[in-house]
Amino acid sequence: MQRLTGMDASFLYLETATNHMHVAATAIFDPSTVPGGYSFEKVRDLVDSRLHLLPPFRRRLLTIPFELHHPLWIEDPDFDLEYHVRRAALPAPGGEAELAEFAEQVMARPLDRDRPLWEMYVVEGLEHGHIATITKTHHAAIDGVSGAELTVNLLDLSADAPPTPPPDVPWKPDRIPSDLELFTYALNSLSRSPVRGYKAARRTVATALNLRRRNRSADVHAPPAPFSAPRTPLNVAISPHRRFAFTEVALDDVKMVKNALGGTVNDVVLAMCSGALRSYLDGKGVHPDRPLLAMIPISVRTDEEKGAMGNRVSSMFVSLASDIDDPVKRLHAITDGTRNAKEQEKAIDAGTLASDWVEFAAPALAARAARLMSRMQAGGRIGPMSNVTVSNVPGPSFPLYSAGARMVAMYPMGPIIDGSALNITVMSYMGSMYFGLMACRESVPDVWDIARGINAALDELKKASDGTTAPKPRKPRSTAKAVKPG
Amino acid sequence: MQRLTGMDASFLYLETATNHMHVAATAIFDPSTVPGGYSFEKVRDLVDSRLHLLPPFRRRLLTIPFELHHPLWIEDPDFDLEYHVRRAALPAPGGEAELAEFAEQVMARPLDRDRPLWEMYVVEGLEHGHIATITKTHHAAIDGVSGAELTVNLLDLSADAPPTPPPDVPWKPDRIPSDLELFTYALNSLSRSPVRGYKAARRTVATALNLRRRNRSADVHAPPAPFSAPRTPLNVAISPHRRFAFTEVALDDVKMVKNALGGTVNDVVLAMCSGALRSYLDGKGVHPDRPLLAMIPISVRTDEEKGAMGNRVSSMFVSLASDIDDPVKRLHAITDGTRNAKEQEKAIDAGTLASDWVEFAAPALAARAARLMSRMQAGGRIGPMSNVTVSNVPGPSFPLYSAGARMVAMYPMGPIIDGSALNITVMSYMGSMYFGLMACRESVPDVWDIARGINAALDELKKASDGTTAPKPRKPRSTAKAVKPG
Repeated sequence: MQRLTGMDASFLYLETATNHMHVAATAIFDPSTVPGGYSFEKVRDLVDSRLHLLPPFRRRLLTIPFELHHPLWIEDPDFDLEYHVRRAALPAPGGEAELAEFAEQVMARPLDRDRPLWEMYVVEGLEHGHIATITKTHHAAIDGVSGAELTVNLLDLSADAPPTPPPDVPWKPDRIPSDLELFTYALNSLSRSPVRGYKAARRTVATALNLRRRNRSADVHAPPAPFSAPRTPLNVAISPHRRFAFTEVALDDVKMVKNALGGTVNDVVLAMCSGALRSYLDGKGVHPDRPLLAMIPISVRTDEEKGAMGNRVSSMFVSLASDIDDPVKRLHAITDGTRNAKEQEKAIDAGTLASDWVEFAAPALAARAARLMSRMQAGGRIGPMSNVTVSNVPGPSFPLYSAGARMVAMYPMGPIIDGSALNITVMSYMGSMYFGLMACRESVPDVWDIARGINAALDELKKASDGTTAPKPRKPRSTAKAVKPG
Repeated sequence: MQRLTGMDASFLYLETATNHMHVAATAIFDPSTVPGGYSFEKVRDLVDSRLHLLPPFRRRLLTIPFELHHPLWIEDPDFDLEYHVRRAALPAPGGEAELAEFAEQVMARPLDRDRPLWEMYVVEGLEHGHIATITKTHHAAIDGVSGAELTVNLLDLSADAPPTPPPDVPWKPDRIPSDLELFTYALNSLSRSPVRGYKAARRTVATALNLRRRNRSADVHAPPAPFSAPRTPLNVAISPHRRFAFTEVALDDVKMVKNALGGTVNDVVLAMCSGALRSYLDGKGVHPDRPLLAMIPISVRTDEEKGAMGNRVSSMFVSLASDIDDPVKRLHAITDGTRNAKEQEKAIDAGTLASDWVEFAAPALAARAARLMSRMQAGGRIGPMSNVTVSNVPGPSFPLYSAGARMVAMYPMGPIIDGSALNITVMSYMGSMYFGLMACRESVPDVWDIARGINAALDELKKASDGTTAPKPRKPRSTAKAVKPG
């Protein structure tokens, strides 16, 4: 029995019927490498054999009477693996459109809070004989531990990995305590940390206010402040339903652009998103009066926080320079912007914007900050905090396997919140960058257009860099991959 | 814009996170009869072309500020057919186990109250090249109109039915009124019918109390009163999750038993359920001290109610005589019991226990009655109101088609509620009786055992009737059809 930290619990409090606080990933596997052939049971047995390495998978919430204190985690005495790992299939031809439609329906449903907060769908019937897994986990369950650690414990470095040794100490489910016991336990510990949960939010708000203050100075290089974003159709209240689109580019192509035109891999990714969103809004006749503003989750550790508590999460706000017509000048403006933002934050690991999956947390934190901000500024008029969330999660460059099947693609699925109806999360794996675009079904029904625009924006940048350095031979998979369904 | 009746609205008020107030049906089609071949788009286009014949399919709820009055129906200005009609598929081999697992997951999810209250899944990948549709509709939407009428408007009498003529008057979506407008409208109409919604419940309670009073008399033939049911593992609080099992018997076999041993088709159905539940509980070492009690929804129309308002629903309580070892004597006891119950009610259409789908409403009504009863008897000790709900819905004996595909089976899926974790609904079609068993996933995980028990109980009755009349040749499909998955 263990009480949730304030930050973990905050993801429960923030969740509404439309703003779900779970994150997910769609991974595609080639089962031809499975020794003896694929079966659903092998995947479920793999999860079963590793449950002791995946503590959040058997923990469920217990809420405290009268909500006196944060909920508790207990080892679920009714744990039922069959409930969590589900077999499913796509209709023919099992292509991107069918997979995305299945994934968006999974993402649109809240997790059952009376059970461990995760579900895994093993999806058969993909084209090329592939299999997909869609793993959905609540933020409250993976914020305290490293989300990356969970993933690693379900994947292997080879197709014929040895069986997992059983745990040293067998798992012991908890008894569900009575309401009276919970009540007493909560009262006893209540004096300890009643407001701890709000400090992170205050810190985020403080950061936002600091940024605003700096922005008012004469320094022209200051990054844009949150709430300086223009209003667009992406910045509205969201429904519970989702649209999911995805696409893939070759990491070598992105690096070629970076080497020819300057900036980092992340800057080129932002420039691709900028180009895609510019075209998308232009096609709708929407011409924002200011450049679009991206919120980028970043990992921020202070020295005193390093260690047991895992990651702290903050956000960086970067202009997408979408008011600049020339794609090269646009990339340069973005590069200047991220450099300034990084200098200002002075807290970002070199080479990565985000060090692991925990940065998915940032949108939720920001939502809380946004609500506090609105309350503080009640009566005034503020714009959207940002136009889009862009997150870049570096992944391995070597192949991974699950139950013997080789992973061939991994599309991350980040959360969206009121006021920010589009989340673009990018993950690199085996020389490719996989873009997952999660959107509100009602406000961004045509999110596949944005996915196609990402490939088009990279092509534009590649063309512009052709004269600058000798272009490397293009990989076939770098061409436009996203095809609008239907 | 139209205000919900109290009875329709009651299904909204009664709904909880675990007690869902939707009903559904799984229909299986043979698409080989489709002119030009099956496609998902043909099914969706069919629904599209008939929307004007299916008014509840485009109506959504509007709740009134402060819940001053029952919600309103409006013609949904954001209606989006693609949201409601969804394409899906089963994993191989697409048999009964895979279909049931898909259907139970659909049933376990509440409908979105911000949209018209229905969903239809078109499920591909069934064995024999079959297609299934799972249609889920909220009680509040189909109680006022005839549910059967909705079904008929989606089915045809032949594979090559002519296209549906367009409506005379084109559909006009409503504007969503402001909160102030809703508030004013509610205040203006509030004096009219504030308590109308509770009359039906009071009537049900009154019926229950009348039954109790009669039962205390010396008449030994009086049917059992509600709340005289023994406690069993079926009579507990339910989870939001479901198990669905189904089976099929030949109507001729049921009629043969009826002709040989007496009683009606419905009596034989009840005897089959009784035998199945007896074996099921016996296998768990549960031996109730009294016979199991079935609640049977019935249609009750008074003369003054006939007409515009559609059906009124009540319930009949019948002993399943499960304490009697001999299957023939058990059937006779059930036959005596239903005859007495019918004489007492004097309000049942001859030949059918239930005249259309509206009787699905009864469990919810009964739930409300049950809550009122408990409150009235606070401090006393009462048992479960009944042990199981059994509903028999007569269907057509001629083939029906949807978008050209011939319907080959139709399994109804009734709702379950706290205290009654199993619903058995039976529908006849084309010489077969289709049993749909909806159960709570946690309290009745082995519902397939009960489905198999229904076939076994019929076999037992057939054997007993062999000596009584010359048995008719058995149809192959009358043998045990339900196979436990896994």
